[in-house]
Amino acid sequence: AHHPATTHPLAPKINLERVLSELKTLATHSDLTPPAVQRVVYTSSDLSARTYLQRIISEANLAIHEDVVGNLFAVWRGSSSSQSRAVATGSHIDAIPHSGMYDGVLGVLGGLEAIRSLKEAGFTPSRDVHLIMFTSEEPTRFGIGCLGSRVLSAELPHEYMYKLVDSNGTTLDEARKAAGFTKELSEAILPDDTYSAFVELHIEQADSLERSSTHIGAVTSIAAPAQAAVRFSGSGGHAGALPMAERHDPGLAGAELALEVEKAALDGQSNYSVATTGRFEVFPGAVNSVPRTATLELDVRNVELEERNEMLTRIRDSATKIAERRGVRLEFNVTNADAPADCNKHIVEMVAQAAQESGLSYSRLVSRAYHDSLFMARKFPTGMIFVPCRGGVSHRPDDLERIVIRITFIRSLANFRLPFCHI
Amino acid sequence: AHHPATTHPLAPKINLERVLSELKTLATHSDLTPPAVQRVVYTSSDLSARTYLQRIISEANLAIHEDVVGNLFAVWRGSSSSQSRAVATGSHIDAIPHSGMYDGVLGVLGGLEAIRSLKEAGFTPSRDVHLIMFTSEEPTRFGIGCLGSRVLSAELPHEYMYKLVDSNGTTLDEARKAAGFTKELSEAILPDDTYSAFVELHIEQADSLERSSTHIGAVTSIAAPAQAAVRFSGSGGHAGALPMAERHDPGLAGAELALEVEKAALDGQSNYSVATTGRFEVFPGAVNSVPRTATLELDVRNVELEERNEMLTRIRDSATKIAERRGVRLEFNVTNADAPADCNKHIVEMVAQAAQESGLSYSRLVSRAYHDSLFMARKFPTGMIFVPCRGGVSHRPDDLERIVIRITFIRSLANFRLPFCHI
Ligand SMILES: [Mn+2]
Ligand SMILES: [Mn+2]
Ligand SMILES: [Mn+2]
Ligand SMILES: [Mn+2]
Repeated sequence: AHHPATTHPLAPKINLERVLSELKTLATHSDLTPPAVQRVVYTSSDLSARTYLQRIISEANLAIHEDVVGNLFAVWRGSSSSQSRAVATGSHIDAIPHSGMYDGVLGVLGGLEAIRSLKEAGFTPSRDVHLIMFTSEEPTRFGIGCLGSRVLSAELPHEYMYKLVDSNGTTLDEARKAAGFTKELSEAILPDDTYSAFVELHIEQADSLERSSTHIGAVTSIAAPAQAAVRFSGSGGHAGALPMAERHDPGLAGAELALEVEKAALDGQSNYSVATTGRFEVFPGAVNSVPRTATLELDVRNVELEERNEMLTRIRDSATKIAERRGVRLEFNVTNADAPADCNKHIVEMVAQAAQESGLSYSRLVSRAYHDSLFMARKFPTGMIFVPCRGGVSHRPDDLERIVIRITFIRSLANFRLPFCHI
Repeated sequence: AHHPATTHPLAPKINLERVLSELKTLATHSDLTPPAVQRVVYTSSDLSARTYLQRIISEANLAIHEDVVGNLFAVWRGSSSSQSRAVATGSHIDAIPHSGMYDGVLGVLGGLEAIRSLKEAGFTPSRDVHLIMFTSEEPTRFGIGCLGSRVLSAELPHEYMYKLVDSNGTTLDEARKAAGFTKELSEAILPDDTYSAFVELHIEQADSLERSSTHIGAVTSIAAPAQAAVRFSGSGGHAGALPMAERHDPGLAGAELALEVEKAALDGQSNYSVATTGRFEVFPGAVNSVPRTATLELDVRNVELEERNEMLTRIRDSATKIAERRGVRLEFNVTNADAPADCNKHIVEMVAQAAQESGLSYSRLVSRAYHDSLFMARKFPTGMIFVPCRGGVSHRPDDLERIVIRITFIRSLANFRLPFCHI
């Protein structure tokens, strides 16, 4: 890695109070009372948060455009942008129910602050620098995560987009148009040569950095989930009247499978194997009824695609055997099986070296959670910078109180002048 | 058992069409479209069903009175009722969601038809004969089964009644008053010498009679449920970010417990041991979240009180161990633990002998489900007559189509002149 000292002629000055105040203001655009945040894509809290974001971006004199699903691009025009591809940073601002104020938002407002501090120090890039706010990284409304980054990286076929529907029966297409994003879906995809690099700043959502008192994580790869919807069905019956020997209880099939899901991860080769049964419901759900159905949703992740797929196969085989043994019917649908991604090695090295030069401790690590970077990495050289969060809390409101932002990252990001390439 | 032939001087003639037509009419007093029935206590469908029932009882020239919770008593006055205690038959008409038309209703309308046919044959009893319709045998609304029979048998303390509340926050006391039952709760309890015998006619809710082509079941004892509400709590987390080794997943604790509940019943000494996890819910129930809580409801039954209690103790011990091993918090509340009941031996013999004399096949059997008879048995000599139902179906709407009523039972009930004693 080469990082000549001459790329630091300026001393950009981060305005910490400004970023913290913006983080807190954005947290008030929420359906819930602080510290709990909920900001679901295209709802009024999402739209008002976007309006606020556009205002502070405009105040920084950046040009704004939006795409067909509401991905927002803030453009800092470079001095010779026609000669080289742009670089970009960014993340998301949508928030699942009862989450906190940093997930995603930090990467958007942190990127903005880095740009602003460079501008205020008098710097002008040669390339264009983009700040991206991706639409609906969270799967809350349409059941699929990273909606915006999937769309612009051509990882979400148009036919599939037209099928997405929320729990009220509103389609994605209706919802995006009602929110004012009315262009043709075919205009969504970014050309392959749009960016020479993309880097996303994000809280770690785990506690390895915090426990080791490390300032910065240089992400080397991003684990990806495979998700499955499983339903076992039996004939039910009266909890008092139906003898044990005559039962075909889908709830117990589900219980067995949940434990097999855990085992598949515990037996995994890599210590990045995780597998979760996040949803488990029985119907009719009455104390005196043997269940008629059990509905489970599974999430299986690994940084190695092959091992991830082996875990999923093993779980599916277990489900089949359990269903046979218990005489219940099985439906097993893989709803999502994205491939993991490697970060660009050059960018990982630049992040590490820049941390070193800035006097920040760092470690190389894997992102267990997935991010818009997973999809950006399909098309563009991509990296991620993690900052610690206390207790590894990410999707919970108490991170407002408990999280520690090592705000140094923002200084780093500016010092690096977006660390991924010479701008 | 003595059953002199001279007690059959009359040949009461059952009007099958009348009973079947009344069963079908009562099934239309429902919140659901036939064949599904739902008739929740004190709702408009329950109240309109009561009005219909009162009309046909009045047409049979029986006097009606109701108690503080709406238990209904239809009285056929005997010729020398002051000299001997009354006898009674009856069951319930409330129905859980998506249930069928026979559960409970058969015992009410069948008892009415037996009385009518005896009256129409010119018979007059010496004792009073009561037909009882018990309020809320099903636990649907207030979470406790056999509400009416518990109240009148003094098995439900008044303090407890005042605490009962439905899922909308309406108390039992408010609901009963709104339904027109406004007397003081203290008037609810029947004097100990009210009945010399009580017998309940009911569908078997299992398929042993049907499979063995037996007309009549003479119930010898009634299993009773113990029910428990269980909650495991952990700290949750992101399904991708939280390593397996750091998890304290209450959903998996619940899965283990559900399997232990099954084992406790399978290992039971008697083949009447049953144990069920009828409710299983995880919160927040999102595919990418490690659950923070798992809520289970358990139902454990046996005809032997001691063995039933041993099962419950074993399950509670398992829950404690699972919670310790997984580092999750446990709340384990026994919400209900009624003792099983034996039927009165004399009544069991009379049912058996009367079946024999009527040319009906019969067998002695245990009631796995519980009934208002469980509580009537605490105060009065009690018996039950089971009739077959196809496939053992009881709490499901398809019994409307699939059940076979061996309508002979009604003839039997009349032939026996209420089989439990000489009236
Ligand atoms: Mn998130
Ligand atoms: Mn995020
Ligand atoms: Mn029932
Ligand atoms: Mn019943």
